[in-house]
Amino acid sequence: MKQEGTQRVRVVQYGCGPIGCSLVRLALQKAYIELVGGIDIDKNKVGEDLGEVAGTGKKLGVVISSDAEAVLQRAKADVVLLATTSWLKKVYPQLQTCIKAGANVVSTCEELAYPYPKQPELATTIDKLAKEHQVTVLGTGVNPGFLMDTWPLVMTAVCHDVRRIKVARIGDATTRRLPFQKKIAAGCTVEEFKKRVEAGTLGHIGLEESIEMLADGLGWKLDNITEDIEPVVLQREVRSEFVTVKPGQAAGIKQMGHGFKNGEEVITLELQAYIGNTDPHDTVYITGSPNMEVTIKGSAHGDIATAAMVVNSIRRVAEAPPGLTTMKDLPLVSAS
Amino acid sequence: MKQEGTQRVRVVQYGCGPIGCSLVRLALQKAYIELVGGIDIDKNKVGEDLGEVAGTGKKLGVVISSDAEAVLQRAKADVVLLATTSWLKKVYPQLQTCIKAGANVVSTCEELAYPYPKQPELATTIDKLAKEHQVTVLGTGVNPGFLMDTWPLVMTAVCHDVRRIKVARIGDATTRRLPFQKKIAAGCTVEEFKKRVEAGTLGHIGLEESIEMLADGLGWKLDNITEDIEPVVLQREVRSEFVTVKPGQAAGIKQMGHGFKNGEEVITLELQAYIGNTDPHDTVYITGSPNMEVTIKGSAHGDIATAAMVVNSIRRVAEAPPGLTTMKDLPLVSAS
Repeated sequence: MKQEGTQRVRVVQYGCGPIGCSLVRLALQKAYIELVGGIDIDKNKVGEDLGEVAGTGKKLGVVISSDAEAVLQRAKADVVLLATTSWLKKVYPQLQTCIKAGANVVSTCEELAYPYPKQPELATTIDKLAKEHQVTVLGTGVNPGFLMDTWPLVMTAVCHDVRRIKVARIGDATTRRLPFQKKIAAGCTVEEFKKRVEAGTLGHIGLEESIEMLADGLGWKLDNITEDIEPVVLQREVRSEFVTVKPGQAAGIKQMGHGFKNGEEVITLELQAYIGNTDPHDTVYITGSPNMEVTIKGSAHGDIATAAMVVNSIRRVAEAPPGLTTMKDLPLVSAS
Repeated sequence: MKQEGTQRVRVVQYGCGPIGCSLVRLALQKAYIELVGGIDIDKNKVGEDLGEVAGTGKKLGVVISSDAEAVLQRAKADVVLLATTSWLKKVYPQLQTCIKAGANVVSTCEELAYPYPKQPELATTIDKLAKEHQVTVLGTGVNPGFLMDTWPLVMTAVCHDVRRIKVARIGDATTRRLPFQKKIAAGCTVEEFKKRVEAGTLGHIGLEESIEMLADGLGWKLDNITEDIEPVVLQREVRSEFVTVKPGQAAGIKQMGHGFKNGEEVITLELQAYIGNTDPHDTVYITGSPNMEVTIKGSAHGDIATAAMVVNSIRRVAEAPPGLTTMKDLPLVSAS
């Protein structure tokens, strides 16, 4: 339901994995949010209290159900926080259920963050359905959603002209969740790493979406986008709570995205995440008039920042005109 | 006139001083902008070609006139760039003329950047008039408009919680325009500096507007805002193209803005601009969950950034819903 002003927002959590649970914990800190439902298909979670599953140590009186339609019917949610998958095709049936129930959606689905260029038909279908049901759909998170698209675009506002843009996210994975450390292949041999790259089971989803958002924001028509992945290999042993990485093993991942205009690389995204990084930082480099260099000291913590982006977007999405929107077109999202 | 999509935007420059001229020079670089009029009351500029007055060395075929109404009537502007004064009351009659002519307005008027808290009646009047004539009005620039409001608010989006925010703009005035160096009292004695502060003729306009925008963006109700100004005094001689500053004289200005919530300082803006600064930078410090520190290396150049903000906002303002808007509520502005 569309709403304005200061009334409380009724929120349903759809997907109660680690990210979904972090959304619940943050939402509970916000006086303007009322958690009114939880959806998950995991048998171990169905029937349990959302507050307990989210690790708050308190019951919310909201029982997790696997019947999305029934939950949404009953909850009359203003906004669903959808945190189930990175893939647009997989998320689509879930989106449909939310939209048809008249709920706005903020999702962590990476491919939803900027879906038009890569999956125009599905994006158009979602946009149409959302407009038909007078709700707004947004994909966001720290990356895509902020670090390699929204933030650099905002920084270009003070430039007369931008000829090239690079964003480097050089993160430290030492304190991240175990699933994240597994995701970046920390502790694998270089050979295992390469096999996983070849099998397509390694790597961050979203560089392409960020590149497309940057290009559209800057009014650039790209002729090609490429990506490559290699392991970060250190000379010294490094360790996290979960993993010990020997010298010569993969401490994590270095993934590059390149956007080309008239054959020239105009967008470069560099994403490093590895255990033992002693100088984490996020930096935007703009080549233009003037050149700019902007740095987040210590780098934005992925899980914290993703939960923040999703929850901080809730009211903007509840108030926005109906349809499929993106961070590029939503009014400024801030902590609230 | 409201418009959508990729058509060219018809732009009138209202106010052809140094800032207005920088807007004209930048607008000429943008293929989507068509300059269709120039307004100024300066006898030396009236009757001259806008391109020549703006220092482009080329005639645009656009003659500057002092008759704003006639220019706007003839030009059928989509957007007027209004760069005449820092004061809302002074800019109001000019705004009225633009709005009644059916033109959207982007203005460098500092007090227009966030006028509701300080001048609610005038702000409401402008909003009503703009809606009546189906146009949008925005005040923007580097500061207020970006550096101490939009940018820090955008950075809070990745925070769970913000308890305190500080923005430090530590600028180097060595390469700025002479009027700017005079504005910051570079080369004055400390006594002269203090007299100008007492007389109210020294100091940056806009800290209060930025503080109010930050507070509203973060959902904070402030109980007090204070400002103070002191000279930056160096032990060594420094000089610019225009001014030599002896040791013990004012090399420039240090102006602080403080916002208090429940008696506690939660917003601090520190603005330094002086000749001979060897480490210019702009930094946002967020105290919250998590803490953040974000720095623009070298600081954003004031005049360049102001022109960029105004021109880069043109299409967003042309497309926005009618009324008085602010950077906080406009969709993301980027270089374009």
